[in-house]
Amino acid sequence: MTEHIVKQFDEDLKSLSEMIAEMGGLAEKLVAESIAALLKRDINGAQRIIATDRVIDRLQHQIEEKAVLTIAKRQPMAVDLREIVAALRVSNDLERIGDLAKNIAKRVIAIEGQLQPPKIAGGVDHMGELVLAQLKKVLDAYSGRDAGKALEVWQRDGEIDALYTSLFRELLTYMMEDPRNIGFSTHLLFCAKNVERIGDHATNIAETINYLVTGEMLTDERPKQDLTSTLAFGGAQ
Amino acid sequence: MTEHIVKQFDEDLKSLSEMIAEMGGLAEKLVAESIAALLKRDINGAQRIIATDRVIDRLQHQIEEKAVLTIAKRQPMAVDLREIVAALRVSNDLERIGDLAKNIAKRVIAIEGQLQPPKIAGGVDHMGELVLAQLKKVLDAYSGRDAGKALEVWQRDGEIDALYTSLFRELLTYMMEDPRNIGFSTHLLFCAKNVERIGDHATNIAETINYLVTGEMLTDERPKQDLTSTLAFGGAQ
Repeated sequence: MTEHIVKQFDEDLKSLSEMIAEMGGLAEKLVAESIAALLKRDINGAQRIIATDRVIDRLQHQIEEKAVLTIAKRQPMAVDLREIVAALRVSNDLERIGDLAKNIAKRVIAIEGQLQPPKIAGGVDHMGELVLAQLKKVLDAYSGRDAGKALEVWQRDGEIDALYTSLFRELLTYMMEDPRNIGFSTHLLFCAKNVERIGDHATNIAETINYLVTGEMLTDERPKQDLTSTLAFGGAQ
Repeated sequence: MTEHIVKQFDEDLKSLSEMIAEMGGLAEKLVAESIAALLKRDINGAQRIIATDRVIDRLQHQIEEKAVLTIAKRQPMAVDLREIVAALRVSNDLERIGDLAKNIAKRVIAIEGQLQPPKIAGGVDHMGELVLAQLKKVLDAYSGRDAGKALEVWQRDGEIDALYTSLFRELLTYMMEDPRNIGFSTHLLFCAKNVERIGDHATNIAETINYLVTGEMLTDERPKQDLTSTLAFGGAQ
């Protein structure tokens, strides 16, 4: 590439990174707010989250467009292409994280006024804190191109899964105790599942960072997975 | 572009389309098999599905690589870029469809041996048929670049959402009738939600086809959405 083209390309990459940073900040904010809204039963907050999710969707399309135009105009080679593929993948995961936060917000509105048992609220709170820490760390790892930090995120996803499995069991027990808890607990079950999936997307981003830095995919199976889909709950336990 | 480059580019596009067709066929097969495995309680079938999902994941990465290299090598303009962006988006949705089918398969294994009420099996069956019809149609629309057919898929997604909402209510009622139904019904609830989400991805593909053919995004809100996340179920109903 000529010096001029190299400079333009660097500017394109910088602007892509800035867009991802903006999107990441927004996704983080939506996740924090959706969990807070769930714990505080904050209907107004929930409605704000639902409206803000569109901004994330728009950002994703802008990043996609910018990425593709950058490739077409600058014809980058290997390592630079990875930068752009990574931007596409990360923006895709962030868009899904925004969607999941929005879905939690919708359920906050649905369960308005219903009692929340303190033990379960505590479980959601704990999962939320962990997933937010993972999300923050992986976004830092992305902006610092830090494969080591990304690997830490990747390795810690199992903790979120374990918390989810324990919350899943508690919610089922709670449903069995009194049929009046079923409707409400079902919404919480989906909320907890959404938080767990946000953790999965943070792990996807960690994999993308590793690919970006090393050029290789993490081929090992992930450390742990959500096990609840394989738990055979008999009715009587 | 020179004639030589145009020809190479056309070959790249053709090969991308073939990869998408292969991936689409596989996704369709996994969805059909996962629903059949759920209805027949076919553990072996479920295990096969879980193994096959990796093939889809691999195909997605190959398509991404091919798409990005094609852009970098051929520097296509506007309408041709859309072809490639569309391939990226469609492969992304197909990968998620494969994941959802795999998740259904895992739950088939989890609920092994537990009784399934005929009414609910009927509901899952009906939803499955509809979602498979949508998936087949949208893949046809993609290979034929048929925006009209894509729009039909987009408009019919509300039917799947309505079926899901009705199944959701039935499962909740069933759980309330007897606490022993709760564990098992929870898995079915997630299965039904997964089928509904497969329908959402078919709708995403329809939107991508519309963008591919017309260059514009469908900006209207979707006809209907899954309403269960906004349903306030009191315990007593």
